[in-house]
Amino acid sequence: MKPLLLTQGDPAGIGPEIILKAFLGYPDSVKGCVVLGDIEVFDRHALALLEAGWVPPPIAIMPSLDVCQKMQLPRGVLPLIPTGEIVGSWAMGRVSAAGGLSAAQCVQAAADACLQGHAAGMVTAPMHKESLLAAGVPWSKYPGHTELLQERAAAAAGVTPVQMPVRMMLANHELRVVLVTIHLPLRAALDAITIESVAQTLLIAHHSLSRMLGRVPRIAVAGLNPHAGEGGRFGSEEREILMPAMALAEVQGVNASGPYPPDTIFMRARRRDNQLTPEFDAVVAMYHDQGLIPVKYLGIDEGVNVTLGLALIRTSPDHGTAFDIAGKGCARAESLLSAITMARSLVAKDAVD
Amino acid sequence: MKPLLLTQGDPAGIGPEIILKAFLGYPDSVKGCVVLGDIEVFDRHALALLEAGWVPPPIAIMPSLDVCQKMQLPRGVLPLIPTGEIVGSWAMGRVSAAGGLSAAQCVQAAADACLQGHAAGMVTAPMHKESLLAAGVPWSKYPGHTELLQERAAAAAGVTPVQMPVRMMLANHELRVVLVTIHLPLRAALDAITIESVAQTLLIAHHSLSRMLGRVPRIAVAGLNPHAGEGGRFGSEEREILMPAMALAEVQGVNASGPYPPDTIFMRARRRDNQLTPEFDAVVAMYHDQGLIPVKYLGIDEGVNVTLGLALIRTSPDHGTAFDIAGKGCARAESLLSAITMARSLVAKDAVD
Repeated sequence: MKPLLLTQGDPAGIGPEIILKAFLGYPDSVKGCVVLGDIEVFDRHALALLEAGWVPPPIAIMPSLDVCQKMQLPRGVLPLIPTGEIVGSWAMGRVSAAGGLSAAQCVQAAADACLQGHAAGMVTAPMHKESLLAAGVPWSKYPGHTELLQERAAAAAGVTPVQMPVRMMLANHELRVVLVTIHLPLRAALDAITIESVAQTLLIAHHSLSRMLGRVPRIAVAGLNPHAGEGGRFGSEEREILMPAMALAEVQGVNASGPYPPDTIFMRARRRDNQLTPEFDAVVAMYHDQGLIPVKYLGIDEGVNVTLGLALIRTSPDHGTAFDIAGKGCARAESLLSAITMARSLVAKDAVD
Repeated sequence: MKPLLLTQGDPAGIGPEIILKAFLGYPDSVKGCVVLGDIEVFDRHALALLEAGWVPPPIAIMPSLDVCQKMQLPRGVLPLIPTGEIVGSWAMGRVSAAGGLSAAQCVQAAADACLQGHAAGMVTAPMHKESLLAAGVPWSKYPGHTELLQERAAAAAGVTPVQMPVRMMLANHELRVVLVTIHLPLRAALDAITIESVAQTLLIAHHSLSRMLGRVPRIAVAGLNPHAGEGGRFGSEEREILMPAMALAEVQGVNASGPYPPDTIFMRARRRDNQLTPEFDAVVAMYHDQGLIPVKYLGIDEGVNVTLGLALIRTSPDHGTAFDIAGKGCARAESLLSAITMARSLVAKDAVD
């Protein structure tokens, strides 16, 4: 079994801390995970944990993934492959070029290892946009991990990013949401909602979820307008864009229904505790906040962000760097653990495909 | 104490049934409530309840509000003032002109009674738009109770509807949301989000909630764009519209903060069970689904719709006519009861003002 890579994230954020906590508190859940990050960064975070009353896990420096796979590390030991060596200074909770560069290098190294078949997938700890900007990473081009990975994966495949369409899925224990548009002003998002982009989202969601579930997923499509347009009175996009896109996707085997009124479809799609088979396996949402408001409403401790459509498996916790609490020992590892579990489920299904 | 009026809603929907169930199951909660509706409609719904195994409450026909107030009806008896007499035929779960007209007449009668000072407030059971259309009520002009009541209240005050700006507030036990825009296509809603409309919303929310809470409410403003525009990268409305509007409102004593990222502010504003003082008393949302997705996410049994800014108190349950289950005895009265409780709290505070 190939390893699952965990990227350090911004050194000044909670990324290294939640990785350490995951190895400390959930050694079985992180079995087979290998961390890419800077030694000094993890040492500083381990020290901070110690000062906050925790006993951080031992860190084993690994020269390469190869060696790492051949060794049998004791349970709970964190295998670290030195990556993204810090050049310059950084401090907890502070933006720095050194931190941004280190974080980006870890993501790129992980992506390359996945694309070259050396790793099963990657789980990314949060980066900080200001640090990336300070490091000269063109943030306007890469407003998130998703876009950065898309370009890396496209380059590896010898195609343009446009030829490798990806979509963001947010998931927690009761809801999965796949977004048609992500990091765009709402006005621009409205323009980006086209028959093509909606149909593409449906296809990507269909293929990814089919693989994950082992059956044809039931996809609910959220409308764009109040009451899903109410027959045209409150907008025409449902008739002119969403329904034609659904018809196109259905021809290719997608099981999509809707468009449903946005204000109630997420409630309907929630998987209740006692519900073995929810009405829908996922909701396709039209824009960032339509999909993220319901996913985050109950709290973000368990949320997972999954990039669909890439030639690699990538998940991440659904929270940011949390500079305000970094290094204080109070960050929670639950969302990271959910992301690891989700990545594993994708890997497992991938392997049997 | 003046009575609280309950309007029948569409005869073919669940309105009459949940009113009957409220009197049957919660006689103390509906003490002081008087129903405006058609006798035959309530008889048919009472019979349907009986057939479904319930024992409907006795109905006392009242000639007027005056007489009603002078009488001491036994606990659990439903006082009905015949209003909106059905002319023509109607059937459970079916659109009809007769039903639409009856429903609209009940609302108008209730509004007039409130505006003339004969009632403390009104709680409206759901109407059905197709029935209203069939009855010739211009639905394009009145896409909901809110707009209809706005015009009625404005006429009573001798001003134009524009001079009596109203806003919709949705509330449940953990969240209050006040909307800047309601029943508009999303594109049109974006155009309707102006410095003036946002500032007006803040003022209306401030005044209504001040009265309700007896103190200055803490209002969170949701951004319009992903991440609240992220410093202009994902849209400029936060800087160009929301912040100037907040500055205008603050001069008039409004305590508003934000604009916050829309995907997390509703989660932050939730009142948890163990939380006596939530961080915010309400969230001002920019458009219909931004505010309604989180309010409805946990279920709609308890949701209440409150019209703010009117010269009368009006609340309603946060659900529709539910034609599909009308007359089957399975509708739930919880949302109606929450609406009654909310109206009472507004009346009480109003009285001490």
